[in-house]
Parts: sequence; C-alpha cells; structure tokens
Amino acid sequence: MTKTFSVRTRSRTTFVDITAEVRSIVADLGVEDGAIVVYCPHTTAAITINESADPDVVRDVIGKLSELVPESPAFFHAEGNSDAHIKSSLIGCSETVLVRDGDLVLGTWQGIFFCEFDGPRSRQVVVGAL
Amino acid sequence: MTKTFSVRTRSRTTFVDITAEVRSIVADLGVEDGAIVVYCPHTTAAITINESADPDVVRDVIGKLSELVPESPAFFHAEGNSDAHIKSSLIGCSETVLVRDGDLVLGTWQGIFFCEFDGPRSRQVVVGAL
Amino acid sequence: MTKTFSVRTRSRTTFVDITAEVRSIVADLGVEDGAIVVYCPHTTAAITINESADPDVVRDVIGKLSELVPESPAFFHAEGNSDAHIKSSLIGCSETVLVRDGDLVLGTWQGIFFCEFDGPRSRQVVVGAL
Repeated sequence: MTKTFSVRTRSRTTFVDITAEVRSIVADLGVEDGAIVVYCPHTTAAITINESADPDVVRDVIGKLSELVPESPAFFHAEGNSDAHIKSSLIGCSETVLVRDGDLVLGTWQGIFFCEFDGPRSRQVVVGAL
Repeated sequence: MTKTFSVRTRSRTTFVDITAEVRSIVADLGVEDGAIVVYCPHTTAAITINESADPDVVRDVIGKLSELVPESPAFFHAEGNSDAHIKSSLIGCSETVLVRDGDLVLGTWQGIFFCEFDGPRSRQVVVGAL
Repeated sequence: MTKTFSVRTRSRTTFVDITAEVRSIVADLGVEDGAIVVYCPHTTAAITINESADPDVVRDVIGKLSELVPESPAFFHAEGNSDAHIKSSLIGCSETVLVRDGDLVLGTWQGIFFCEFDGPRSRQVVVGAL
C-alpha cells in the first residue's frame, strides 16, 4: 500500500505541485475511504499544502522563507545547504490527507506541493495508505 | 468516518481552542483506539497543538509570527494576504492525534487550536478517523 | 498499540536522535505494514525529521531557530519560555512515518529527533500504530 514517484526540480528553491500525481496514486492504490501520507524521504526538501490557483502564493512563501533563512557561510554544516535543512524542518517532511469516496479531501484552493530547497535534483515522493 | 464543524473567527489573526469540539467528534465517530487527523481545508489558516491553560501562550505565538511574517505590500500575490498563506505553511494544516479508550492522547497542557491568519471568517474543520 | 518512552535532555535547547528507540517500539508493537505517529505530549518541545549523519545539521537548525525566536522578557506569558512554545508550534509536535516489512520508511539521511526547547528535563514520547 505504498507507491513512490519521482519529481524533477529545476532550480535551487522551487515548489512543484504534485496534487495530480498523488490523486493518481490514490486511485492506483484503490483507497476509497481512509487517509494517505505524502512523505518526502529527503532532508533538504519538504511537503506542504497551500494555494495552487495563483502561483504567486508559493512564490511569496519561497521569498519569505529565503529571507528568514538565507544561505550563509556562517553555518557549521560544511555542505553549504544548512538553510535547506532548516527550511525542511520548518515546513515538515509530510502531509496527511483524508480520502473520501476515492478522492482527496482538499479545500477548494488547496494543492499539495513538493518543496525543493537544495535543487535542482531528481527527488522521490512516497505515498502510503494509512 | 469524517465529520466537519464550523469555527467563527473574530479578528484577522486569532487562535481558537477547538479541543472540546474535536473530543466530541471522537465520541460521535465512536473511535475507541486509533488516531484522528484534525484538518484545515483553508490556505490562510492552520491547526496547531500548544498550551491551552494560559491564553498568553498563543498570544505570544501570534505576536512572534506577525513579527516574522508581517503584512506587506511587497508580496507578489495581489490579495494582500500572502503573510497568512506563509504562516499556514509554517504551522501546517493538520495535526494527527492518537486516541486511547475513546479519548484524545494529549499532554496535560496541550489543546488543539484552529489558527486564523486572514479573518474574521466562518471556517471549516474536518476531523477524520485514521 | 501505543508505547511511551522517556528522553532525558541535557540542556535548554537540544535535539535528541530517537530513531533507534522508535525502531525498537515498531518491532515491539509488531507493526509490519502501516504507519506510526511519533508524538510529543509537551508544549515546549517538538518532533522533527532531519539529517542524522552530521550533528552540525541539527546544530544549525537550533542556531537559526534561536536567532529567529530568541528568549525575551517582552513576551506576555510569564514563565520565561514563550520562545519554546513558539518553536514547538513552528516545528510541530508529531511526525507520521510509514512502516514497510517491519521497518521505518526513512530516507538515507533521515533520523527522528526529539526537539527540546525548555530543558534540561525528563520528557515522554508516545509512539502509536495507525
């Protein structure tokens, strides 16, 4: 009751709308009524739910996160991506979404996003039925 | 195994203790041992768990969030509520709570809060058994 | 299907890797395929998943959190630990982790951390099967 899919990210910091992929997996898994977890197995990325209608919303989320947690040479971790690890813990590596009648229980404006903080890379997302 | 209830918020940014409503729904759903997800289907609000004994705690959480992510005309999203979208992703739109012997497994000081960041409004909260 | 264990924290702000304890409980509970929630019943602590290989990663997460949310006498809550309550809501009090073939579905670099923001103390962590 788990499926994994890949996300190709195109810049260092970017949010990718993965709602369609998650919805498709819910159908594949045959989940009718229950819940799923959308899980990011990476430590410099995250999963969030926010408005998917206007791309300026996630642009503003990214802008503010970059302002609050800028890249900096002052971090101890020597790989230059501590800001990405910090953003990952602030946003969180999973979202739990209810499923009713075979479809995700999302609000009108909600979409599920893969949050890349240290790209560009090929990433994995795990979806599991609860 | 899902119930929805309404929350009336009274100001732009306010946290409403919804622990009693959630507890009542757990009883209605007949959940004895398992878990529930408390889910916010809005993109300018969130769900958090924090101290419910002293209202100054959530007052301080709200104050700091407003300081870190103030309203600003500099955002791209034109509706003037980008700060609320950002706070929503920082806090997160759901909490998962264990249920044992028909009651929520919460710590002594914990309560469940609906976090309004773009009120006042009438909002929905979805509670689903896992 | 719930087990609780104790974590002894040694300073005011510190992250403790609890992956081994959680893995051991998953075996004790006999969870083969499903998911668990790792839950913190305290309001001045949290649970996060981040890199466990290099301890400088969580050192940087702690450093940035302390910079964004410093201790301050200006808070309303009179116990002097409002910063800890705020960090708790920013990081979140639980993580949901999938289990496959009896083991946690974690990425290569991921570990589960108990985040202490108001120690040193003896704390509890609840692990429940979903």
